[in-house]
Amino acid sequence: MSLVVVGSIAFDSVKTPFGERKRMLGGSAVHFSLAASFFTEVRVVGPVGDDFGDDEYEVLTKRGVNTDEIEHVEGGKTFFWSGNYHYDLNTAYTNETELGVFGDFDPKLSDDTKSAEFLFLANIHPALQLKVREMCVDAAFTGLDSMNLWIDGEREALEKVIGTVDLVFLNDAEIRMFAREPNLVRAARSVMKMGPGVVVAKQGEYGASLFVGDRFFALPAFPLETVQDPTGAGDSFAGGFLGYMASLGAEALSDQAQLRRAMTYGSVLASFNVEEFGTERVARLTREEIDARYSELRRMTALAELPGD
Amino acid sequence: MSLVVVGSIAFDSVKTPFGERKRMLGGSAVHFSLAASFFTEVRVVGPVGDDFGDDEYEVLTKRGVNTDEIEHVEGGKTFFWSGNYHYDLNTAYTNETELGVFGDFDPKLSDDTKSAEFLFLANIHPALQLKVREMCVDAAFTGLDSMNLWIDGEREALEKVIGTVDLVFLNDAEIRMFAREPNLVRAARSVMKMGPGVVVAKQGEYGASLFVGDRFFALPAFPLETVQDPTGAGDSFAGGFLGYMASLGAEALSDQAQLRRAMTYGSVLASFNVEEFGTERVARLTREEIDARYSELRRMTALAELPGD
Repeated sequence: MSLVVVGSIAFDSVKTPFGERKRMLGGSAVHFSLAASFFTEVRVVGPVGDDFGDDEYEVLTKRGVNTDEIEHVEGGKTFFWSGNYHYDLNTAYTNETELGVFGDFDPKLSDDTKSAEFLFLANIHPALQLKVREMCVDAAFTGLDSMNLWIDGEREALEKVIGTVDLVFLNDAEIRMFAREPNLVRAARSVMKMGPGVVVAKQGEYGASLFVGDRFFALPAFPLETVQDPTGAGDSFAGGFLGYMASLGAEALSDQAQLRRAMTYGSVLASFNVEEFGTERVARLTREEIDARYSELRRMTALAELPGD
Repeated sequence: MSLVVVGSIAFDSVKTPFGERKRMLGGSAVHFSLAASFFTEVRVVGPVGDDFGDDEYEVLTKRGVNTDEIEHVEGGKTFFWSGNYHYDLNTAYTNETELGVFGDFDPKLSDDTKSAEFLFLANIHPALQLKVREMCVDAAFTGLDSMNLWIDGEREALEKVIGTVDLVFLNDAEIRMFAREPNLVRAARSVMKMGPGVVVAKQGEYGASLFVGDRFFALPAFPLETVQDPTGAGDSFAGGFLGYMASLGAEALSDQAQLRRAMTYGSVLASFNVEEFGTERVARLTREEIDARYSELRRMTALAELPGD
C-alpha cells in the first residue's frame, strides 16, 4: 500500500546534556519516513537545497524510501534548525531557524503521489497541509501533526484542515490548547467532533493515548536508561503507526487490535529514535529489533484478569 | 492479614476550578485506610484534637477501619490544611497549614499494632517514620511515602528510613530529585540500591510505573472526564496497592502478576478518589465498582501479540 508524507527535510544542530551534533540530517518527513520504511513503501515530498547531497539521500534510499518527489531547488539552502535540551528532555529550546527553500515551498505532486492511499501531513503550515490534502482525493486515511505555533496563530486554517483528516497526532498539551479544555478526555472528544475519527495524544516519556470514538487505549513509553536526543520522536511515532497501518491496508482501519498494534509500533520506533542523535539509531535498525521491543513492551504492560473474570 | 498505617488525620479546605469544601475529613492516613479497607482490615495510627467528632469517626468505622489507635489529644486541634488547584490539577498550592496535635505527635503503638505484618508509613517526618518502623519489628512488608520537603531538608533521615523499608511510593519528580538523576529508570534503580526491592513512581494523570529488581510494569491512569479534587490520590493509590497485597499475605510479595494487580487496584482507587472532593466518593464506593473498573482498565491496556509470537 502506498504511503506519502509531506513535511520538512532539514539539517539539525542539536545540543543535549549527552552530546552535540552539527547539521545532521533531520526534519519531520525524514524521521517519519525512516520509521515507516520498516513496514511499507513510503514516499517523501519536500524541498531541499544545494547543500543536500548524496550522503543525505543515501540515508533514505538505503531504507528503501522513495525520494523521487524530493524537490531540489537550485541555488537554495535546505531548512535548518538548531536547538538544545536541558536535563528535562521534554522541552526543546530553539536557537535558530532558517527556512531556506522551505519558505517558498509549494507542493506539486505527481499523479502517482496524488493517488496515495495513506497520507501523512507532517507539522507544516495548515494552509499547505490543506492544499496537499485536497490534491490527494483518493487518500483512504490521512494523519496530521501540528504544533502550538499554528494553534495560536492559524487556528482557522488548522480547524479547516483538521476537518478533512482521519487521525490527529498532537501532544496532550496541544490537544488541550486546541480544544480549549483542560481535561484530556473531553478535549480529545472535542477534536473528534471536528472530523477525525482517531486522536492520538503523544505524552513524551509517559507514552501515548489513543481515542477512537468512545474507545480508549493507552501505552506507556518503553523505559529507557539512555535518551540522547528527543528530536523527531513524535514523527518516528507517527511513522511507525501509519507505516504499520498502511501495510495492512484501509480495511484494517476499524480494527481496534490493529490500531493498538500501530500505537505500539509507533512507541517502539520513537523509543529507538531518541536513544541516539538524529537518525543515527533508526538508520541501522532492523525489523527484528523492532519486533523484539514490541514483545517486550507487551510483556511490560500485561495485566492478569481477576479470578472469575 | 493485618495492615497498619501511620500518618496524618486532617481537616482539609480545598478549592479547585470545580468547587470548594471547607474543613472536610482528609489526611494521608484517612485516604489510605479508606482505600485499603476494601481488601483487608486496616488500623489507623495518628493524633486528632477535640474538633474530631463522631461524624469523622463514622466515615472510617463504616468502612470497617479500626480506629482504636487514633490518639485523641485533649484540648488539641486536629491537623488542618488548606490549599487550591488551578486547571492543571497536578500542582497543589498550599494556603495554610496548622499542625495542631500533629506538632507533638509521638507515636505509641499497642503490641497488636507493633506485630502488624504490613505497614505503611505515610508522608510524615522521616525520623517519625523510622521510629515507627523500628517499633514494628515483625513487619513482613513496609511501604513508605515522602515528599520534596523531606528530600530537600531531611535527606539523611530519609535515606536512613528508606534503607529499612521494602517499597517506596514517590512521584517521579521526587524519585529523580532524591536520586539526583534525571533519568527515571536509573533513578529508580538508584533508590532500590538503598534497600527497597520495589519502587512505585506515581505519575498523576499519566498513571504509575512499577520497578521490581530489573522488572518493569507501567499502567496508564484510568481516563476520567471529571476530576474534581486530586487531594489524597497518592494515598488512595498506596491504600489500594498495599490493601490488596496485605489481603494475599507475605507469600505473594514476589509474585509479579499480583504486584501488577496491586498497581491496578491502586490506580482504580486513586481514580475514584479524585472524582469527587475529599473522601466523598470512596466513602460510598463498593467492591463491585472497584472490580468493574479494574476489568475496564485491563481491557483498555490489552495489547495483542504479534503473529507467530
